[in-house]
Amino acid sequence: MDFQKVLNEIYEEVNAEGIHGKVASYIPELASVDASKFGICLVTPDGDSFGVGDFEEKFSIQSISKVFSLVLSIIRSDNKIWERVGREPSGTPFNSLVQLESENGIPRNPFINSGALVVTDFLVSETELAAQAILDFIIQEIGVGGIHFNEAVAQSEIIKGDRNRALSYFMKSFDNFDNEVDKVIKEYCYQCSIEMSCKELAQAFLLFTNKGRSIYTDKQLLTLSQTKRISALMETCGCYDQAGDFAFKVGLPVKSGVGGGIAAVLPDKFSVVVWSPELNEKGNSAKGFKALELLTTKLGCSLY
Amino acid sequence: MDFQKVLNEIYEEVNAEGIHGKVASYIPELASVDASKFGICLVTPDGDSFGVGDFEEKFSIQSISKVFSLVLSIIRSDNKIWERVGREPSGTPFNSLVQLESENGIPRNPFINSGALVVTDFLVSETELAAQAILDFIIQEIGVGGIHFNEAVAQSEIIKGDRNRALSYFMKSFDNFDNEVDKVIKEYCYQCSIEMSCKELAQAFLLFTNKGRSIYTDKQLLTLSQTKRISALMETCGCYDQAGDFAFKVGLPVKSGVGGGIAAVLPDKFSVVVWSPELNEKGNSAKGFKALELLTTKLGCSLY
Amino acid sequence: MDFQKVLNEIYEEVNAEGIHGKVASYIPELASVDASKFGICLVTPDGDSFGVGDFEEKFSIQSISKVFSLVLSIIRSDNKIWERVGREPSGTPFNSLVQLESENGIPRNPFINSGALVVTDFLVSETELAAQAILDFIIQEIGVGGIHFNEAVAQSEIIKGDRNRALSYFMKSFDNFDNEVDKVIKEYCYQCSIEMSCKELAQAFLLFTNKGRSIYTDKQLLTLSQTKRISALMETCGCYDQAGDFAFKVGLPVKSGVGGGIAAVLPDKFSVVVWSPELNEKGNSAKGFKALELLTTKLGCSLY
Amino acid sequence: MDFQKVLNEIYEEVNAEGIHGKVASYIPELASVDASKFGICLVTPDGDSFGVGDFEEKFSIQSISKVFSLVLSIIRSDNKIWERVGREPSGTPFNSLVQLESENGIPRNPFINSGALVVTDFLVSETELAAQAILDFIIQEIGVGGIHFNEAVAQSEIIKGDRNRALSYFMKSFDNFDNEVDKVIKEYCYQCSIEMSCKELAQAFLLFTNKGRSIYTDKQLLTLSQTKRISALMETCGCYDQAGDFAFKVGLPVKSGVGGGIAAVLPDKFSVVVWSPELNEKGNSAKGFKALELLTTKLGCSLY
Repeated sequence: MDFQKVLNEIYEEVNAEGIHGKVASYIPELASVDASKFGICLVTPDGDSFGVGDFEEKFSIQSISKVFSLVLSIIRSDNKIWERVGREPSGTPFNSLVQLESENGIPRNPFINSGALVVTDFLVSETELAAQAILDFIIQEIGVGGIHFNEAVAQSEIIKGDRNRALSYFMKSFDNFDNEVDKVIKEYCYQCSIEMSCKELAQAFLLFTNKGRSIYTDKQLLTLSQTKRISALMETCGCYDQAGDFAFKVGLPVKSGVGGGIAAVLPDKFSVVVWSPELNEKGNSAKGFKALELLTTKLGCSLY
Repeated sequence: MDFQKVLNEIYEEVNAEGIHGKVASYIPELASVDASKFGICLVTPDGDSFGVGDFEEKFSIQSISKVFSLVLSIIRSDNKIWERVGREPSGTPFNSLVQLESENGIPRNPFINSGALVVTDFLVSETELAAQAILDFIIQEIGVGGIHFNEAVAQSEIIKGDRNRALSYFMKSFDNFDNEVDKVIKEYCYQCSIEMSCKELAQAFLLFTNKGRSIYTDKQLLTLSQTKRISALMETCGCYDQAGDFAFKVGLPVKSGVGGGIAAVLPDKFSVVVWSPELNEKGNSAKGFKALELLTTKLGCSLY
Repeated sequence: MDFQKVLNEIYEEVNAEGIHGKVASYIPELASVDASKFGICLVTPDGDSFGVGDFEEKFSIQSISKVFSLVLSIIRSDNKIWERVGREPSGTPFNSLVQLESENGIPRNPFINSGALVVTDFLVSETELAAQAILDFIIQEIGVGGIHFNEAVAQSEIIKGDRNRALSYFMKSFDNFDNEVDKVIKEYCYQCSIEMSCKELAQAFLLFTNKGRSIYTDKQLLTLSQTKRISALMETCGCYDQAGDFAFKVGLPVKSGVGGGIAAVLPDKFSVVVWSPELNEKGNSAKGFKALELLTTKLGCSLY
Repeated sequence: MDFQKVLNEIYEEVNAEGIHGKVASYIPELASVDASKFGICLVTPDGDSFGVGDFEEKFSIQSISKVFSLVLSIIRSDNKIWERVGREPSGTPFNSLVQLESENGIPRNPFINSGALVVTDFLVSETELAAQAILDFIIQEIGVGGIHFNEAVAQSEIIKGDRNRALSYFMKSFDNFDNEVDKVIKEYCYQCSIEMSCKELAQAFLLFTNKGRSIYTDKQLLTLSQTKRISALMETCGCYDQAGDFAFKVGLPVKSGVGGGIAAVLPDKFSVVVWSPELNEKGNSAKGFKALELLTTKLGCSLY
């Protein structure tokens, strides 16, 4: 398939459609991002990469980091992390407390905030510097440097972190949170502040395309079963309360972030990352959603 | 792959594990089913079929019929059915009214009761005898006769249908229900009462494996896009509040029924149906779940 | 106290304040009521009555009828009705289904729709013509004729009754509803359609002021304990999700209706009814609320 | 009325009934209380007091302190505290987060934990040592010394305070919480740890019986309107999710605490406090509830 041609077409068609949304504004660092940014990068298991637009510009990966923290927690806990977090779509917004109350402090899945906080809490128990461990994992996985936290973003998120503190203390009241809340919040906010380009993210997500093996280091980082299961989780829970619609229209496991990035994979075929900061009403990149829909339509391939 | 060998292994292993659950007991006809029944049938797009155990014995397909009614409504409405029903997992039990209230009478998806009732309501507007139309569709699709309603089951379900009446009137109060409630309930209960064997169901689900084309009549019944989208919906919403766990452990689009059947598909590869009446706490066949988990593990193939 | 002078003052002050709301519009008969109507009538246990404005004009009592049906069910069931309905404020709108689901079909109290439907269901089991029995009770209690159902209102409510049908079938699914739903809905809608003036309603509510004894027939209709308990229920549950605010600002047991009436009592002192069709956002008469607040302030007496 | 005789009768009858419940066990200091303790004290506006059983023994007032913190916040805010907290019964448990989410961080009323935390947050903004200010208010109101915090209880509550921290941060995320959470939690736990006897509490609650005026210092502490409104709030929201039942069976404004105390008032007549540590399933003193029910029955007087 001529991936480059398809990406170019998508880039033009999406821009022509005049799709718009709202840039995340709860912290100044995200609010000030250029709303017109738009990039796509697709990487194949043999290492070829195809890009269009701002695909080499770094952006705040935000909740996409939840995939990396989950990967690390699965590896380090030998799958025991699943005793503390569920695997079901939530049917409620990403930062809701409602279901936690009815389910005794066990978050529905690791891709909503409560679940990701439990995962980070686990990592903090394993290694004080959980965010650094996540960053190190990414850097080692794709074998490149130049990936960093954004200090200003992290600090702003820490200041704005009261809802996440509420979620954390709530789980602590159910004995599903081990460390000091502020320590975990700090690590959580730092991991969210990691900045990567579409290309770097697509390279990092190649792991799920390639049966858990990094093509960059030739190391098996996840078992085949773990790899498939994380992809399954991305399919059912990867974009908040729009996961069903994503599966329906796109048909790829994805993880989105409030910074406007969406990372997606098609096992054995490719990983692809889209970035455009304007979000739809469900908190997912508006152009990103459309671009991925066009991608699976034009390529004629998806999970289904 | 030697499908027959794999099915035989699974049959033995699952039986050896001593998995048990509770047979549905809300109507006498289901309560009296032999709990020890267990069958599996796998069919490939070239028409080969492989079976083990009670795979040729008919059972009550119950909610698996929701897939057929959805297919028919998509065809007849030219996709407009999606204006009346959502596509998101619900995060609540199959017969819950809670989310209907917060979402103005639009069911979360067509595979929970409220959604299936809206679909049947649409079909009743199209053709008085909706259940018969669904049955005819199945029969024509797989080109065999001998598939029938179970009158006793249908009548018992009609009697026990108050929760479904509540759902229907609730949607009617939001103007998302057009026909007389009792007329729709009747058609709904009849479609649920259809009895098919694992083999017949697997043949009928081959549609989703085979890009929307019936291999039995060589007719294109669904577009490729429609086919994929229904599979996506089965992946995210096919087994009530356990869809995430199914995706995680099985990795196939599925639809389960309270009669103990679970139908699953792997696009381009096979459709497979398992039947065992004992249900786990989420209402899905306990042995069926395990059998499908073993299947994708042993075959080494799933969506992901 | 010079009740007449106080009522006159209130009438002028409330009118001067320019308080407005929205007339109920879900049926044409209510929507077409003259929004400027405003009347108050206060009756004392020695039979004196004081009125101002449109206090002798009949209006649709709507949910105020729930008090009469409760009274009748308490008498006829010898308090056993409390096995089927609770006594707690609901914290949700009058027609919500959410709490029914978590409380196994037992309505929170008899003054929300679900609770009143259970009460009417009980009355229908006692006497086919429940609405007529309620009307007869009122007429006999205050010893006057000329009180009727409004056929057009009742029929419109029956047509618009789908939410109530949903509530009824939902309770039926929990075995807390005995009769045919449509039969109960009919009786329920007829009782809601009763038309009375402020004066007639105040006379009927004198029962709660006067220890359960009708001053018009000199009959003890309720025991002292029953009387007090119904008043307590009006205090905590009498005006939907605004009961706390009513207690706070008015301090009288009340029952409001969507027709714009509010009936209130001060035990041993007086009963009072206000009518003005414009409703606040919680569904209670906007002017009526203000008038009662002024009344207890000016008279310097309330429960507290 | 011969109050002493009535109290003696109640004491014997309640003991004879063999009513039991569960002593609060979430902190060791409450768990170790002698479950058989039982005392009642009634005080009249002319200063007479009547007591039976352990009515002079101090116990942990716990949530009864919420009334005093509310009084102080009303005085100091000149009623503006109502901009930050509602006045409606909640219909959910005392420590639920669910309604906070749907009502934008405004607690339903000041007698559930979230509401009391907002009140304490306000007091901390007014005076660093909020708990001491509450204690001082009580001591000055009734003109006696010897009332203290229980340091061990306060420290244990602080340790067990994660649910309250969750509530606090949740409200902070809605900008309805001004101070450092841990500072407010500390003051909140100290106020809950105040120990008073039935007699001292009944004297302190005489304020609401006596139109807001302390008979001990002859000072008007609350306006008449404020007094009535706090009583109204105790009537509709004073004992968590059992307020309706209390109003129904007892008919007095009350506030209960998990230490087993229930304080009640009848305006112009008396205040009364019962203490027995065993709690019913709603968290209210089991014997206390029964004792108050007998009291209003035997005295033949209640609000209604």
